[in-house]
Amino acid sequence: MNSVVKGWFSEISDELWPGQCFSLKVTKVLHEEKSEFQDIKIVETETYGRVLLLDNVIQCTERDEFAYQELISMIPICAHPNPEKVLIVGGGDGGVAREVVKHPKVCKVHQVEIDGRVVDLSKEFLPFMACGFDSPKMNLTIGDGFEFMKNHKEEFDVIITDSSDPIGPAVSLFQEPYFQLMKNALRPGGIICSQGSSFWIDAQHVKETMDACGQHFKNVSYAMAMVPSYPCGSIGFVIGCLDKKSKLSEPVHKFTTEEVDKLGFRYYTSDVHKAAFVLPRFAEKALGLC
Amino acid sequence: MNSVVKGWFSEISDELWPGQCFSLKVTKVLHEEKSEFQDIKIVETETYGRVLLLDNVIQCTERDEFAYQELISMIPICAHPNPEKVLIVGGGDGGVAREVVKHPKVCKVHQVEIDGRVVDLSKEFLPFMACGFDSPKMNLTIGDGFEFMKNHKEEFDVIITDSSDPIGPAVSLFQEPYFQLMKNALRPGGIICSQGSSFWIDAQHVKETMDACGQHFKNVSYAMAMVPSYPCGSIGFVIGCLDKKSKLSEPVHKFTTEEVDKLGFRYYTSDVHKAAFVLPRFAEKALGLC
Repeated sequence: MNSVVKGWFSEISDELWPGQCFSLKVTKVLHEEKSEFQDIKIVETETYGRVLLLDNVIQCTERDEFAYQELISMIPICAHPNPEKVLIVGGGDGGVAREVVKHPKVCKVHQVEIDGRVVDLSKEFLPFMACGFDSPKMNLTIGDGFEFMKNHKEEFDVIITDSSDPIGPAVSLFQEPYFQLMKNALRPGGIICSQGSSFWIDAQHVKETMDACGQHFKNVSYAMAMVPSYPCGSIGFVIGCLDKKSKLSEPVHKFTTEEVDKLGFRYYTSDVHKAAFVLPRFAEKALGLC
Repeated sequence: MNSVVKGWFSEISDELWPGQCFSLKVTKVLHEEKSEFQDIKIVETETYGRVLLLDNVIQCTERDEFAYQELISMIPICAHPNPEKVLIVGGGDGGVAREVVKHPKVCKVHQVEIDGRVVDLSKEFLPFMACGFDSPKMNLTIGDGFEFMKNHKEEFDVIITDSSDPIGPAVSLFQEPYFQLMKNALRPGGIICSQGSSFWIDAQHVKETMDACGQHFKNVSYAMAMVPSYPCGSIGFVIGCLDKKSKLSEPVHKFTTEEVDKLGFRYYTSDVHKAAFVLPRFAEKALGLC
């Protein structure tokens, strides 16, 4: 079932989410190729619009991608008093860039994506996300985020890691050495926010990522977003801050309803920011947050 | 795909959630029958435990049913200053009853389930939910909730409607005459809470249910719970209160962490109660909540 069979794409992973499977009805395969790093597919679906698949895992769908992109971007940015310079690692589709550049205090955005083909194909087939690359604030590098950060110390206020799942090429982005690199690349008071999987799928893995983060950040937290097309229907973010006293769940900059609508947010509000940190009791316990 | 094929149960509904499908790997079909009202299946799955299927739609899985049962029960009960007498309509598996009887202020619970076979089979195969029926607070009637309420006026503090999806036999539980019946069956200050579908699937349908509720309740609200095995990974509740001034998102009775753990809640906390009412911006707009 791991590709398009009888008009359905089925997302099976015995390693990541055994025993369950989400499927989407595909009306057209728009593009398919093997890049240097991964298998890339872009499909048109019956009810979720265009969908980007990397190694047969759903990365984003036109119908609900905004939920993920807005929260992984705005939670760290709005928790920072002065988020002038932002680094995005991964995010080759451009959706995170699209959100990050919206914030009026963000002046400069660097992005490092390892697979240039994802960027090219997003520009061709997923313009609703790739539009993020058009901003004059943007500086895109095709390369390795690890290497990039080694040459950039104390430079960023916020680092967002928009990675694929913790298997294969992205696995190191969930581990301790990566958190150390990010720490060194941050200015004082800096905040990081990484795709952190869902505790519904594997709370132990989320805990391990938080622990890896905690080796370099004294202030570690976890927030959630509902994203129907992701396994279990939600995804979380591991957030770390160099400043011990910052309350990450409390936006420093609160958008008014008018600002939210003017900036075109469909999910993020200041109340959503706070509520994203409120976890079910079993998750609080499993992640050691109580 | 609408039954167990090659070891997978796939939940397809062209009417309710076209173009998408959630599947569970089934290790054993424990029981299957056609009752007077519906097709009932109970299966053992590889990673979601035992699962109850009615007309081939997932009603609850052992792995995540607590999320739904705790929130549909505790939100209306904890928003009520004195929830002594509670009516449950539907909920034949017993999961809602299991949660409702936990609350120390609840003295008497009436439940009306139309399909006695669901109750019998739950007692046989799903004891982790059916245990709700064992409480001395419980009074179970096998019959029609509509008829029951016609003969019970101004009697209940809270009415919980744990129905299946708005298609087939349950459709009337989402419509105006049902909300009128509930209004008449409530004591002053009473609160109702109904399974209200997810705005991710069909926001227009949720809005119509809220409008139907709003014809008889001046104070109408909507709250969410993450439930991975439901379509789109979440479900919502339409909540109505006869008292205009009550703030339903604010629990009157706040449980301490110790009480939460002692009562065995795995999802519900007083913070979760409040956060459940915080909706993404597009949903606030679609449901007319702003």
